[in-house]
Amino acid sequence: MKKVAIVMGSDSDLPVVEKAFGVLAELEIPYEVHVYSAHRTPEEAKKFAASAHRKGFGAIICAAGMAAHLAGAIAANTVLPVIGIPVKGAVLDGMDALLSTVQMPSGIPVATVAIDGAKNAAYLAAEILAVSDKAIRDKLVGIRAKASREVLEKDRTIAEKYNR
Amino acid sequence: MKKVAIVMGSDSDLPVVEKAFGVLAELEIPYEVHVYSAHRTPEEAKKFAASAHRKGFGAIICAAGMAAHLAGAIAANTVLPVIGIPVKGAVLDGMDALLSTVQMPSGIPVATVAIDGAKNAAYLAAEILAVSDKAIRDKLVGIRAKASREVLEKDRTIAEKYNR
Amino acid sequence: MKKVAIVMGSDSDLPVVEKAFGVLAELEIPYEVHVYSAHRTPEEAKKFAASAHRKGFGAIICAAGMAAHLAGAIAANTVLPVIGIPVKGAVLDGMDALLSTVQMPSGIPVATVAIDGAKNAAYLAAEILAVSDKAIRDKLVGIRAKASREVLEKDRTIAEKYNR
Amino acid sequence: MKKVAIVMGSDSDLPVVEKAFGVLAELEIPYEVHVYSAHRTPEEAKKFAASAHRKGFGAIICAAGMAAHLAGAIAANTVLPVIGIPVKGAVLDGMDALLSTVQMPSGIPVATVAIDGAKNAAYLAAEILAVSDKAIRDKLVGIRAKASREVLEKDRTIAEKYNR
Amino acid sequence: MKKVAIVMGSDSDLPVVEKAFGVLAELEIPYEVHVYSAHRTPEEAKKFAASAHRKGFGAIICAAGMAAHLAGAIAANTVLPVIGIPVKGAVLDGMDALLSTVQMPSGIPVATVAIDGAKNAAYLAAEILAVSDKAIRDKLVGIRAKASREVLEKDRTIAEKYNR
Amino acid sequence: MKKVAIVMGSDSDLPVVEKAFGVLAELEIPYEVHVYSAHRTPEEAKKFAASAHRKGFGAIICAAGMAAHLAGAIAANTVLPVIGIPVKGAVLDGMDALLSTVQMPSGIPVATVAIDGAKNAAYLAAEILAVSDKAIRDKLVGIRAKASREVLEKDRTIAEKYNR
Amino acid sequence: MKKVAIVMGSDSDLPVVEKAFGVLAELEIPYEVHVYSAHRTPEEAKKFAASAHRKGFGAIICAAGMAAHLAGAIAANTVLPVIGIPVKGAVLDGMDALLSTVQMPSGIPVATVAIDGAKNAAYLAAEILAVSDKAIRDKLVGIRAKASREVLEKDRTIAEKYNR
Amino acid sequence: MKKVAIVMGSDSDLPVVEKAFGVLAELEIPYEVHVYSAHRTPEEAKKFAASAHRKGFGAIICAAGMAAHLAGAIAANTVLPVIGIPVKGAVLDGMDALLSTVQMPSGIPVATVAIDGAKNAAYLAAEILAVSDKAIRDKLVGIRAKASREVLEKDRTIAEKYNR
Repeated sequence: MKKVAIVMGSDSDLPVVEKAFGVLAELEIPYEVHVYSAHRTPEEAKKFAASAHRKGFGAIICAAGMAAHLAGAIAANTVLPVIGIPVKGAVLDGMDALLSTVQMPSGIPVATVAIDGAKNAAYLAAEILAVSDKAIRDKLVGIRAKASREVLEKDRTIAEKYNR
Repeated sequence: MKKVAIVMGSDSDLPVVEKAFGVLAELEIPYEVHVYSAHRTPEEAKKFAASAHRKGFGAIICAAGMAAHLAGAIAANTVLPVIGIPVKGAVLDGMDALLSTVQMPSGIPVATVAIDGAKNAAYLAAEILAVSDKAIRDKLVGIRAKASREVLEKDRTIAEKYNR
Repeated sequence: MKKVAIVMGSDSDLPVVEKAFGVLAELEIPYEVHVYSAHRTPEEAKKFAASAHRKGFGAIICAAGMAAHLAGAIAANTVLPVIGIPVKGAVLDGMDALLSTVQMPSGIPVATVAIDGAKNAAYLAAEILAVSDKAIRDKLVGIRAKASREVLEKDRTIAEKYNR
Repeated sequence: MKKVAIVMGSDSDLPVVEKAFGVLAELEIPYEVHVYSAHRTPEEAKKFAASAHRKGFGAIICAAGMAAHLAGAIAANTVLPVIGIPVKGAVLDGMDALLSTVQMPSGIPVATVAIDGAKNAAYLAAEILAVSDKAIRDKLVGIRAKASREVLEKDRTIAEKYNR
Repeated sequence: MKKVAIVMGSDSDLPVVEKAFGVLAELEIPYEVHVYSAHRTPEEAKKFAASAHRKGFGAIICAAGMAAHLAGAIAANTVLPVIGIPVKGAVLDGMDALLSTVQMPSGIPVATVAIDGAKNAAYLAAEILAVSDKAIRDKLVGIRAKASREVLEKDRTIAEKYNR
Repeated sequence: MKKVAIVMGSDSDLPVVEKAFGVLAELEIPYEVHVYSAHRTPEEAKKFAASAHRKGFGAIICAAGMAAHLAGAIAANTVLPVIGIPVKGAVLDGMDALLSTVQMPSGIPVATVAIDGAKNAAYLAAEILAVSDKAIRDKLVGIRAKASREVLEKDRTIAEKYNR
Repeated sequence: MKKVAIVMGSDSDLPVVEKAFGVLAELEIPYEVHVYSAHRTPEEAKKFAASAHRKGFGAIICAAGMAAHLAGAIAANTVLPVIGIPVKGAVLDGMDALLSTVQMPSGIPVATVAIDGAKNAAYLAAEILAVSDKAIRDKLVGIRAKASREVLEKDRTIAEKYNR
Repeated sequence: MKKVAIVMGSDSDLPVVEKAFGVLAELEIPYEVHVYSAHRTPEEAKKFAASAHRKGFGAIICAAGMAAHLAGAIAANTVLPVIGIPVKGAVLDGMDALLSTVQMPSGIPVATVAIDGAKNAAYLAAEILAVSDKAIRDKLVGIRAKASREVLEKDRTIAEKYNR
């Protein structure tokens, strides 16, 4: 079974990134977590990307803030799907990370999710693996159904309480 | 072989979207093109999304401008990877479409590429199929190598002409 | 008498949305509150919208954050006036929700109010019903007059305290 | 039958605003067009707003650019639903007009549509009148169905031409 | 001696606005404080503006947030210099108020200062009166000199403490 | 009679700035035009500012683009009212010049008008002089009345042509 | 050995700026700290800039917020490299200071670092001195190697703890 | 004498970048021009950066658009001063490139100049070399003086033509 890699540019991104762990665990998808900085450890980031396919990864999630180059630097060294999580920093409300992640030039895509959207990065990685893995697909369908039921339960609770 | 679907919210998005066709053709990936509006034909958009897996699609590219809901509306009805192209409209330089596409809530990811980034949407779709398709993977590696050579040729030309 | 529907995309929007309840209660306009997600429960959202006119609703208020598609998804399935409240999320100060709500394509309008502007959504719904309901109209005129008097009272208090 | 008022802040807004005329004409809704500036003719704008209900108007569309105060100034003097069209000016791509129109304080709502969204302003006005006018409602349903058919026709044409 | 008027759109603007009081008091310029809302008390706002010259005012400071129309509404009814303070609200960090205040159409200027810049509004009002009032001018020159000395004292303290 | 100074940071600002000349000429207010750059000729800019009061100026209009420091640099060297025109450059639609002009620190105000708002800069300068000059005041009132009449004439023309 | 100057526009910038001190101290580069305001003490700022080369400075770091003119005002009076730190203020999340610092006109560059990026300002100053100072260069290389090792240690810790 | 490197991410950046050539030529500073993409030729970009000091470069100018990673990728592999030119692309007016270039994490600075600010990148590179090169310094002082004279000449021409 393909694994998912989760790479963060700094360990300060961990509080955002760890929301992805639970999603992958629930889906029983194996994952590896790494800290590689596009700027402080460019060589290790590159080596990891270049070897990821060979090591059995099916998708790489990258989380970084500010001038968030990590996802792009990883994507430049692999043709595996790379998913970018723009991380909100101390200023600009994450707009810097969003634009640095999503506005990639032709040929090197980064599949960008919402600012601090670690859960969706995990779901997207799972959807990618599910293209050729029926078991993951079935679990994803189940999770969607459960999320739908939860919304409808909340609808009943709130409607009951507030309708006039 | 899995197919790629390309859905645009309006035929006015065609000049942006058609840049994806050449990429997929070069990679010999079959694709289907559709015009479904999240707002004018919500039912057809939904049906297409719900049946896309069964019909042999492996990824769905969605292009829309303004309050670009199409990718999200498609993603709400499938667990296939959905790729969103925010299309620049007459105002706001594409920022409206970018935020409407990328800022999806937990559970329903949209893999967002750059504003008007149709080529990268196609490359990302190909990368997703390539996770379990060695032939596409090899072609993607080849295209990367070619792009790299082209940059280096331009480097030589420009260096020769301008260095002092 | 026509009712007003208030739909929120997530129960986390409740602290914003509930400010609308008091306004409608003061105006003695009956209302129903629902939680329907454009992405997690698209079918229920659609059914609600499609049946809202038949059920006696005269306007539908929709509140959602991030890539706020709810108002648009509701509007796509009804010709009742749909009022959108963009809800401020954890990042971008509500700009994502504002653009996702207001920048609707031709044919499917959403009457957008200020970010987190639940009170005005309720007042706007009331104004819409008041077009053909003199009683509501009279109450709205009365509320305006009262608001005006309150400002003038504050003017007197502050002028007295601070003028030099 | 209720009429719709269309007020623009300057005759330079006419190219944007006139797209609303065709929509209202198609729906056979009578309308009056005016040029009143919130800043150059505040008294006339106020008088028009204050008398609009008495004169048989059911909704007032206001279009203005830059620090677009017109819709708010009209709304301050009537409890009729006021619809604001932010008009794109020479700078800032319409963001100034959008924020000046939509960010109204509690008690005085403006139903804001997209930047330069004159057609949707007209559709929204029609939806408001349709709450108590079955003929307009039926026409709106018909226009929606027609728009849906047009999208599907385009879908067929484009699918035929581009699918591989 | 000319007076300065300070008008706020809501008493919630008082914490911002009151910083202007101290500046005017220090300059011994008489001032009047008012709460008039462009939207809730348009008539009183207008009357105040229209009579301000006759009542001996030389400048009018207006503070408002969100779709900040107050300065513009006052300016529309007087040819006295009107100074606008955009007030930061709960969202968008004051950008809405800034654009609503500064982007006035030709013929009706508003002299806009920084977001929440109440002190500078007062200094600007003083500078305007100082054009024909030598006493105020002399005080302003003195305040500048004092501010300059304070910076230089801080320079000495900090240089002493931190230089290496 | 007090004069108005109009300083531009570069002669490339002339097409924007010259719209101010006509306004001042119509009001029969004498003016001087200068090109001083805050960065290329800081000394001359400073000297001009420092001597402006003595030379009979009553207000200084400054126009600059990009990191528009000119108005602030002038304001730092005079207590005359300084009016800033943010000039739209090749990028960012004038937002850089607007923020660089308006966000001045306490003590050194710049009366900022709209991006490229040269006419309003002239009107504001005139309003400032009019505080103590009845002739200018009367002309300003006359211009307002004329502008109002022009709007009402356009209203008649357009109403006649388009009302249904 | 060349010194580095660190100038802040206000002592309120000290909490941001002091992060630069540790970097320079670690690199054993002598530095001087000053408080000069472009607007409150323009003459002192100018004199400092004009004499900085003669006094043995090799780079000048300038930190300022809002309409951050300090770096530009210093740069206008020296051909030493000037490094600008845009400081986040109470509103707009530092965007005003960033644009006011970076968007300099041709001929007067300011080397701008990230909002509140005082450490990088110090590293950049060190890199500039290192161009002709091997000892600093060696220390910079050492710091980079150390930062790289720290990332890799964090990688090991986190990988160990979280990998599944 | 140290050389300056000018690296662009794509040959499409040439029209912006070539404005730097003239500045360096006028200053008689030798330069080399390269096209290296952070994403398409990451290895060559890295090698160039890592060897730049040894090859006699004193500063590296990097120009890139969109998610402009080039300057950061170069800076990650050298302690030479790296100057970033954010290049305006087809959307967002250069804001994406600006934030991607300037918002670098601690330890890896990029000296960012204005969007499309190639001339200033060259001047900044020259200022950096001038720290230890009196000849360049003298030329820079001369150019500043000339620019100053040109402004003053324009001042005379314009003052003569327009003053009233």
